[in-house]
Amino acid sequence: MTVRFFNAYVLTFDDNNTAFNGEVWVENDKIVYAGLPKKTNLSFDREIDLNGNILMPGFKNCHTHSPMTLFRSYADDLPLDKWLFEKIFPLEDKLCGEDVYWGTLLAVLEYLSGGTTAVADMYFLDDWVIKAMADGGMRCVFVKGMSDLGKNTQKVLDECESMFNKHNGKNPLIKYALGVHAEYTVSRDLLDGAAALSKKYCAPVSIHLSESKKEVADCKEKYGRTPPFEIASHGVFDNGGMAYHCVHIDEKDAELLKSKNVSVVINPASNLKLANGIAPLQMMIDKGINVAIGTDGAASNNALDMFREMYLASVLQKAATGKPEALPAETILKMAVKNGAYAMGFDDCDCIAEGKHADLIAVDIKKPNMQPIANLQKSLVFSAGKSNVFLTMIGGKILYENGKFFMGIDENTVYAKCNEIVRRIVNE
Amino acid sequence: MTVRFFNAYVLTFDDNNTAFNGEVWVENDKIVYAGLPKKTNLSFDREIDLNGNILMPGFKNCHTHSPMTLFRSYADDLPLDKWLFEKIFPLEDKLCGEDVYWGTLLAVLEYLSGGTTAVADMYFLDDWVIKAMADGGMRCVFVKGMSDLGKNTQKVLDECESMFNKHNGKNPLIKYALGVHAEYTVSRDLLDGAAALSKKYCAPVSIHLSESKKEVADCKEKYGRTPPFEIASHGVFDNGGMAYHCVHIDEKDAELLKSKNVSVVINPASNLKLANGIAPLQMMIDKGINVAIGTDGAASNNALDMFREMYLASVLQKAATGKPEALPAETILKMAVKNGAYAMGFDDCDCIAEGKHADLIAVDIKKPNMQPIANLQKSLVFSAGKSNVFLTMIGGKILYENGKFFMGIDENTVYAKCNEIVRRIVNE
Repeated sequence: MTVRFFNAYVLTFDDNNTAFNGEVWVENDKIVYAGLPKKTNLSFDREIDLNGNILMPGFKNCHTHSPMTLFRSYADDLPLDKWLFEKIFPLEDKLCGEDVYWGTLLAVLEYLSGGTTAVADMYFLDDWVIKAMADGGMRCVFVKGMSDLGKNTQKVLDECESMFNKHNGKNPLIKYALGVHAEYTVSRDLLDGAAALSKKYCAPVSIHLSESKKEVADCKEKYGRTPPFEIASHGVFDNGGMAYHCVHIDEKDAELLKSKNVSVVINPASNLKLANGIAPLQMMIDKGINVAIGTDGAASNNALDMFREMYLASVLQKAATGKPEALPAETILKMAVKNGAYAMGFDDCDCIAEGKHADLIAVDIKKPNMQPIANLQKSLVFSAGKSNVFLTMIGGKILYENGKFFMGIDENTVYAKCNEIVRRIVNE
Repeated sequence: MTVRFFNAYVLTFDDNNTAFNGEVWVENDKIVYAGLPKKTNLSFDREIDLNGNILMPGFKNCHTHSPMTLFRSYADDLPLDKWLFEKIFPLEDKLCGEDVYWGTLLAVLEYLSGGTTAVADMYFLDDWVIKAMADGGMRCVFVKGMSDLGKNTQKVLDECESMFNKHNGKNPLIKYALGVHAEYTVSRDLLDGAAALSKKYCAPVSIHLSESKKEVADCKEKYGRTPPFEIASHGVFDNGGMAYHCVHIDEKDAELLKSKNVSVVINPASNLKLANGIAPLQMMIDKGINVAIGTDGAASNNALDMFREMYLASVLQKAATGKPEALPAETILKMAVKNGAYAMGFDDCDCIAEGKHADLIAVDIKKPNMQPIANLQKSLVFSAGKSNVFLTMIGGKILYENGKFFMGIDENTVYAKCNEIVRRIVNE
């Protein structure tokens, strides 16, 4: 499949943040040309006139639990304990592989319609999540969230290793990564085991980290140090990784994460809604950490919308620091695209350039919320939304265009299946 | 014009929050029936199958400066002083009536596409703003933002009174209301004069109030009391009104505003972006204040999107109070519709019931972000967005449907005019 985008306002997201009015050509899964209009002998399967609208790399959602779309709007406005123990956990217990498959596909529909082209997911029933991502055409790193609560530690580690070997190197869009659920849901043996796997495969390990005040206080009381230091002390971060949330980290924590080449993934919407607070984003950036953005799951967000996260990431820091100049749009966009690609290890789809993977989105600037046209980078962060995304391409395949999905599975089937699943597990 | 909506999931927003699967019939500008399907001799000009999607009253945006859409994305990520004095004020100085007309129409396009059916605007060049609102078909209360900085106080008051008489009672969609810009931009004589006008016409007076810490500190230093007490002491609130922002008010302030029947209009997005903080919404509600929601202008927001404001109003209070159960979706929806209608004095379009004005919106629930269907009120606040709005009707007229505008002025003309204006005033 060859596609020529023309009359595009191309935001490349390259190191110089180059932008130009021109063309981008795609052959199979790669970008083969990005530049001014020029003649070619290539014959294209499709030539798409972007009418001056934006063409840019898709967003990288670096932390999500896709199957949890099933629980959207099921347990909102509740105290944390009630939300988790009375509502979410009991439902999760009832999920089978096929449920997780359909929930993931629903999430994929939402990613596609909102311009997200790659996600880092963490859930269980790995095979089914991965199958849905593959069937949906999503670029994905599935992060195992190992936990040995009530389980045999070695078995958990073995299963993770076996999945790691099973799923890596098969599908160019899918990676399987090592991960630990959180400091408070695993034994110290599991941390040691995760570190050993990391060493064996030179592989990064990702983890939920310092999400709530309670998590930090409990860890300090139990181990005399904060979660980042506790996790690092077991060697878990020796090959880097992603640390999710980091709402309650201090400067020392941040310096440690930086020294270990750990990317931090902030989840502003989820942190607000569960009343965990606002992550010290400006401080982490000042420390030189690679900070990326995630949505977390739809049970706590409730949308999987990178526009909302970008917006929040900026304005919450302005409010938290008292400085309206904090976290400008350009920094936020870099976090949502380039830093995200780096955090996930998808460096080959971090910008528009020849040879890069064709993970592209088109953004309509001829809608009221993008007019007048003064500074499109600012508009992307402060006024744009998913209603502006009219085309999403992953690995050279157009999966969403003008409100229609082309992922090969009808969206109404996905909706029907998900509603059926929710009815069943709520009433079971 | 008669319209029949059928197969609708009707959220009435009446006092019992009634919801049902049924029909709503509109004749001219009024709702003539809302209930279960039934036979009728009425012949309808249009019969619209809503396919099970939501039909509800439109959102009431109780504080905005519509013409400021012209400045969207022109001055973001700047310190407050630089933003206002180096960027916004110099541009505003160059605006002529026609500029304000086109800027307002651009805002109207954004209101319509986002499901907002009534706005309370505050700006200058009143005739032009009002003409644009009327031409665009918007329901609007234009609030005069009187200020006598460098002006003759009596002349400002006289002009306000003359406009008040000129514009009220002419167009059923448009009202003209008394208003004072802010405590720090007016003389005490102007406050007394505004109170006299309020008394003469039994009319409420609205004002920007306690938006920044500095405003409160300066007022206390100068007058020995907070802005609410200072304003009230001049009799300005004796017929109620709307107080915009109220980020920095305390319990005593809130009790005063409640006792004066002043509605508070919060503007969470603007307050974050300009780093003013988070208004104590829960406290104001606990005091029994009628709290409504506004977007403020697009120069400080940058969107005019009531979904974003509703979402922020809820999740910011959860974070600020540390309680995930704070400000549940149902409360937020009431603020955005019913409380807003009351604040603006548009009580006749606050819900879906026979005899009420037909200010209605249709919301698509067959999109990924609204699925599965567990609790649609929660979804409206926590995951819906303008991409879900597919029909907006004001006073019985359909002005937006399926991405197309029917306000009688082509949107591309509005975009072109606004871009032309911005180019002119930036380069002048």
